This record gives sequence, structure tokens and C-alpha cells, in this order.
Amino acid sequence: VRTYGCDYRCSWCDSAFTWDGSAKDIVRMLEPEEILNELLALAGPNFDSVTISGGNPALLGSSMAEFVTLLHERGIQAAIETQGSRWQDWFYDIDSLTISPKPPSSGMNTDWAMLDSIMDKLKEQGKAAHSLKVVVFDEQDYAYAKSVHQRYPGVPLYLQPGNEDVAEPGDISARLLSRLEWLFNLVIADPEMNRARVLPQLHALIWHNKRGK
Amino acid sequence: VRTYGCDYRCSWCDSAFTWDGSAKDIVRMLEPEEILNELLALAGPNFDSVTISGGNPALLGSSMAEFVTLLHERGIQAAIETQGSRWQDWFYDIDSLTISPKPPSSGMNTDWAMLDSIMDKLKEQGKAAHSLKVVVFDEQDYAYAKSVHQRYPGVPLYLQPGNEDVAEPGDISARLLSRLEWLFNLVIADPEMNRARVLPQLHALIWHNKRGK
Repeated sequence: VRTYGCDYRCSWCDSAFTWDGSAKDIVRMLEPEEILNELLALAGPNFDSVTISGGNPALLGSSMAEFVTLLHERGIQAAIETQGSRWQDWFYDIDSLTISPKPPSSGMNTDWAMLDSIMDKLKEQGKAAHSLKVVVFDEQDYAYAKSVHQRYPGVPLYLQPGNEDVAEPGDISARLLSRLEWLFNLVIADPEMNRARVLPQLHALIWHNKRGK
Repeated sequence: VRTYGCDYRCSWCDSAFTWDGSAKDIVRMLEPEEILNELLALAGPNFDSVTISGGNPALLGSSMAEFVTLLHERGIQAAIETQGSRWQDWFYDIDSLTISPKPPSSGMNTDWAMLDSIMDKLKEQGKAAHSLKVVVFDEQDYAYAKSVHQRYPGVPLYLQPGNEDVAEPGDISARLLSRLEWLFNLVIADPEMNRARVLPQLHALIWHNKRGK
């Protein structure tokens, strides 16, 4: 589920249609129960986890809390991805919380005080089900990812190579794999990143730039 | 680290050189401390986890226990992959234990009594750090993976598409990704496999059939 609206405008956003107005004709305003009904109509019993991304889903308060409660009432887990610029109390109820601060190439500035406060709250709560993810386009982004790792050493860190052309049609897997190898080689050579895990965007390797996949 | 020798002879084994005699000139008999020294010489401080595979590393007893102890004394984690045909008490000390029973396409028969006994011991010990992995080549293998999932429902299950030509030179990523999509689509359509996770062999996507990668 992608929510509409973002407090960021990352230069390379692969879902800019969630905030730049280009998809305003297909955006739908739905109540939590309507979203759940849409999911059930789409996938029937073939899922038991829902990933909520955006835009920035952390812009939403009570309505998102309600949606997460609806999922849990049906035994469905909730995963979320957010950049860590805002806190919501419903974060505590999320089964898998990915905090993905944005590196220099995005053009955005990290609010470290806010990020510290979010990571502190998650740590205090004692739930292990949160992790950090940094998308890496270049050496500067890699240095940023390292600083994130050093700042929150106990939190699992995932690195992903960025997709440098989110509009390219056709099969982009060779380009993505070449960047994956580049990132692997940086991490392999770097003793400070022994615990960082490098992962591809699996959906992009398989379904490329197709929206909705 | 690959150990030599296997009680299986899987038809599609990608490391047959560890048991078929074809690499007998480069196989080296090393003491645990010598293996550790080789790793340190190769990678210096750039690692803090070692994956032990084979062959079947579970064929080894006290020498492997000693190797794992040496790793832990240096703060290095130990991961292992084995097919679940043999138990070793040093399994309890492994930080990440992957049990990978072999499906019908391998030509091998699963010893379910042994596998049950291994999974029971791991469960009793209360460590969460073990998972199941099934390599899937065809629909029969997929049915086998489902039966494994139903038999051990609480254990994380990973599915991986098999590499159908482990000797093909050059870039095999397009072939591997096509099989990954096939497997994704089976799992997406199957409500009994909602919790199964499909992952590629990342090293093969990047380094193809190159040995030692």
C-alpha cells in the first residue's frame, strides 16, 4: 500500500507519482476498512503481510493506526518503510519497521535529532523488528551509510544500490546487477561494514520499472 | 569454507568438486587453526562471519567443533549449511544454521526421521537462529518444499530457484532471474506459502558460475 504525500522530494524517487501530482487522477482517498477490502479483493487469502510505503506513511496518524489494527485483527502483519523524518506512536505496533534515511544524492538533509529520537524510542521499546536501510548511488552516499551504521551500531543495516533511471523501459536487470556488484565490492573491502548487508531491489530485478510491482 | 566429502550426490550439485574427486589435486587437509590463518591471510579484518558449507560439513565432528570455538574466540560468527542428513552437537553453537533438505530433482531421498530429530533438537534448544532452505527446480520440488513447510511450520522457510546449468560460462543472470520470477509467481498464487520467502542466489547473479565466489 502506498500512501500519498511526502515531506521529501528525493531527486531519484521511484514513486514520485505519490507526491508530485502526476498521478492525481488515479489517487484514491480511502478509509482504512476500504483499503483492507481492496486488498482482500485483489489477493484473497494469498497474503498475510502488508507493506505500507509512500510517499511517507508516517505523515498519517490515527487513520494509519486504525488500518494497522484492522490488519492485526485478521492475523495480517504490517511492515512499513519510512525515511525517519517523523514519529508516529503506531510505529510501536508495526511488525517490521524499516527506517530509510536518505543520503546526499537525494538532495535531502537528514534531521539527525529526529532520527536519534526515533531510534531511541524503538530501542527502548525492546522490539528487535526494526532495521535501517540506506540506498547508495555513489561514494558520498556510501560514506553517509557508514555514518548511519556508526551512529546506530546495534541496528541491522541494509544497503541497496539505487536505481539510476526509474523511467527506463524494458529489462534493466543488467544495469542493476552491475551496481549491485559495485556495492558488494565496496562493502567486502571495508572492515567497518562487516555487518552491513547488501541486497538488491528484488522486484526491480524481476519486474523492472513497472509500476505496481 | 567448503569441507570435502558428502553423503549425497545431488544431480545438480554446484559444488560436486567437493565430493566427486575432480578437484582432488587442489583439496587441502588443514587443521582448524590453519583454516583460520588462511582466512585471516585472505581477508584480514574484513569479515566477522564465516559460512561453512560443503560437501556436507555435518560429516565432521570434533575438528569442526574446534574450528567454531576458534572463530568465536575471535568474535567471528559461524554460519553453516547442511542438508539435514546428520546431526552434530556443535550445531548448538552455530550462529546461523541453514538446514537444506534436497527435493526430488536431486535424486536423493530425505531421511525424515533424522530430519525430524534434528529439527526437534534445534527447537528444544530455543535458539531462533535456524532456518530451512529448499532449492526448487520444478513443480515436484515445489510440492516437496510445501511438505517441508507444513511439517515444520514455525521455522522460517527460504526457497531458491535452482541453477540448471552450473557449468555454463559467461553471464547467466537472465536465465536465473527468469526462474526467480517463475518461483515468485508460484508462491504469490499459493495461500499455503504466504510466509515462505523466495530469494535468489545473489553470488550467482553477480559472479555467475565462477568457483570460489
